[in-house]
Amino acid sequence: MGAPDVPFLAAARGEPAAHTPVWFMRQAGRSLPEYRAVRGEGSILHAIKQPELAAEITLQPWRRHGVDAAVLYSDIVVPAHAVGFGIDVAPGTGPVAEQPFRSAGDLDRLRPLEPGDIGYVTDTVALVAAELPAHVPVLAFAGAPFTVASYLVEGRPSRDYVHTKALIHGEPTLWRALMERLADSAVAFISAQLGAGARAFQLFDSWAGALSPADYAEFVLPYSRHVFGRLAELHPGVPGIHYGVACDHLLELMHAAGPQVIGLDWRTSIAAARQRLGADVAVQGNLDPALVLAGADVALAGARRVLADNAGHPAHIFNLGHGVNPQTDPGVLTEVTALVHELTGRS
Amino acid sequence: MGAPDVPFLAAARGEPAAHTPVWFMRQAGRSLPEYRAVRGEGSILHAIKQPELAAEITLQPWRRHGVDAAVLYSDIVVPAHAVGFGIDVAPGTGPVAEQPFRSAGDLDRLRPLEPGDIGYVTDTVALVAAELPAHVPVLAFAGAPFTVASYLVEGRPSRDYVHTKALIHGEPTLWRALMERLADSAVAFISAQLGAGARAFQLFDSWAGALSPADYAEFVLPYSRHVFGRLAELHPGVPGIHYGVACDHLLELMHAAGPQVIGLDWRTSIAAARQRLGADVAVQGNLDPALVLAGADVALAGARRVLADNAGHPAHIFNLGHGVNPQTDPGVLTEVTALVHELTGRS
Repeated sequence: MGAPDVPFLAAARGEPAAHTPVWFMRQAGRSLPEYRAVRGEGSILHAIKQPELAAEITLQPWRRHGVDAAVLYSDIVVPAHAVGFGIDVAPGTGPVAEQPFRSAGDLDRLRPLEPGDIGYVTDTVALVAAELPAHVPVLAFAGAPFTVASYLVEGRPSRDYVHTKALIHGEPTLWRALMERLADSAVAFISAQLGAGARAFQLFDSWAGALSPADYAEFVLPYSRHVFGRLAELHPGVPGIHYGVACDHLLELMHAAGPQVIGLDWRTSIAAARQRLGADVAVQGNLDPALVLAGADVALAGARRVLADNAGHPAHIFNLGHGVNPQTDPGVLTEVTALVHELTGRS
Repeated sequence: MGAPDVPFLAAARGEPAAHTPVWFMRQAGRSLPEYRAVRGEGSILHAIKQPELAAEITLQPWRRHGVDAAVLYSDIVVPAHAVGFGIDVAPGTGPVAEQPFRSAGDLDRLRPLEPGDIGYVTDTVALVAAELPAHVPVLAFAGAPFTVASYLVEGRPSRDYVHTKALIHGEPTLWRALMERLADSAVAFISAQLGAGARAFQLFDSWAGALSPADYAEFVLPYSRHVFGRLAELHPGVPGIHYGVACDHLLELMHAAGPQVIGLDWRTSIAAARQRLGADVAVQGNLDPALVLAGADVALAGARRVLADNAGHPAHIFNLGHGVNPQTDPGVLTEVTALVHELTGRS
């Protein structure tokens, strides 16, 4: 089918679509009562391993909000978990590794990812793709090498990335070896999802904003660039999104990694991003999720400001600037989706 | 005395000094064993109320490291606490208000700050100033209106500032009334410290980086600009520093508030800041405190990179890019201080 029939893919390519496409990072999850009804207790990694459950959770926000893409219900530590690194996701805490990555010997716990390691993920993608209409793509995703490395090295969510930065500056050769493995892992993980029916992908470098531009350019960019470059060879024409929180100071560098779409949080205006990166760059974002929590009036006013900032450019995928907060009233997200569709509808 | 005799004041004015001055945000505190020996248990607000104890704690890092300024041992919620708003600092948590600021009636809990409310603070400043040699100034500080507001409105430290942003966008008139009171409070608090013997000040807008440039410009900048403007009238020639974490995207706006010195974290290079703000702007920063935690080798290499980034400009006050982490080995800070003095010594 042609891109104009698929608003998400059209916008990613900068082509006009029936309306500006909408999806929400972390749209599948705790904000939805139907999610809480089926999810059960325990680690997300356990839920992800049940393809029918994971497919149902992936589809829920599409059914409820009428969003234009279904992002796989998964987690960025899945590949490291799948090769036996020894990492889990503790409910209420986040990724936890009992034995963090600290020395060269830990590289042995990161063998290459094989398709057979993640059969449950590709099964989920196939189930979701079979259910969705042709104009709603499944989005693959993976954690970018830096952000995954930060979890493996810190052993738990961090605010200052002390061990990660100590590794970068104290043992740069080991850091590079780790990043090479994680880049290959991200390629394999995303490629498997695309092979199973996903039609675009997002690389989450959520915590890269903790770095200076100089450190990002030297110790991170080469590996993220490898991910986008290799995926472009393996899956030509499939759009990739590059996203991080509070990465305004890294905008040009993250764009230089090679994504088709740059994901923005609310700290970077869409107009400013086009000024810095080129007038035709495709952008995703960037409504502050805190405004969605403040109720429909504040949220809808915020959505209108995002659209005004974009000024009618076709190369825009509407999203939040960060993931949906679990406390969010899902009715507000439905209203935001409807408003964006209404205000941008071209039919 | 002339500024060349006081390295801190010379650098703030862009004039050559005997060496690049050094101090560390949160230098007085838990990283020092001599602090832990005298501090006792309980809230920092209790310790601050004992001028001899607070003066001793303020002086400790100067004695140990030979830094070029002594920043008052205090807390940004002191003024709100002193007028009876109902806020304390819970050890291990941070500022906590049992009844957060949520409606117009809460303005009554923020009467104007009078000198008599904070006699213990001015007594501490006077004790410290009497002890220090003439070439080491005492630094006053206060929280900027936005950052103090975020504590009053959230009621505790926050990651997403949901209530604060809801107030800004849902009740902008009440927000402005709150910010006016907090701006006047910051002026009164800093002015009292300067009157007691402090010779420069820092306005901490630590969490302003959570805002978009548009929101900062409309809802925050006018009030921070009032603080710097009024203090310049009351205390002409006294340099003010403006600092926030992860504020690269607000750099021009925070500079426009009127400080003599702009404080940078490690996300903004000193050279880039001079390119954006003007070649002669005075800057403070910006060694990543995570590198100091990684040991002397990594810390000293990082300090050399900061000095290289500054390229010998006289308008540079060396500091970390954020506060000293309590786990820091204080010996490393002493080594960093000595290295900066040695490499920049002009005598």
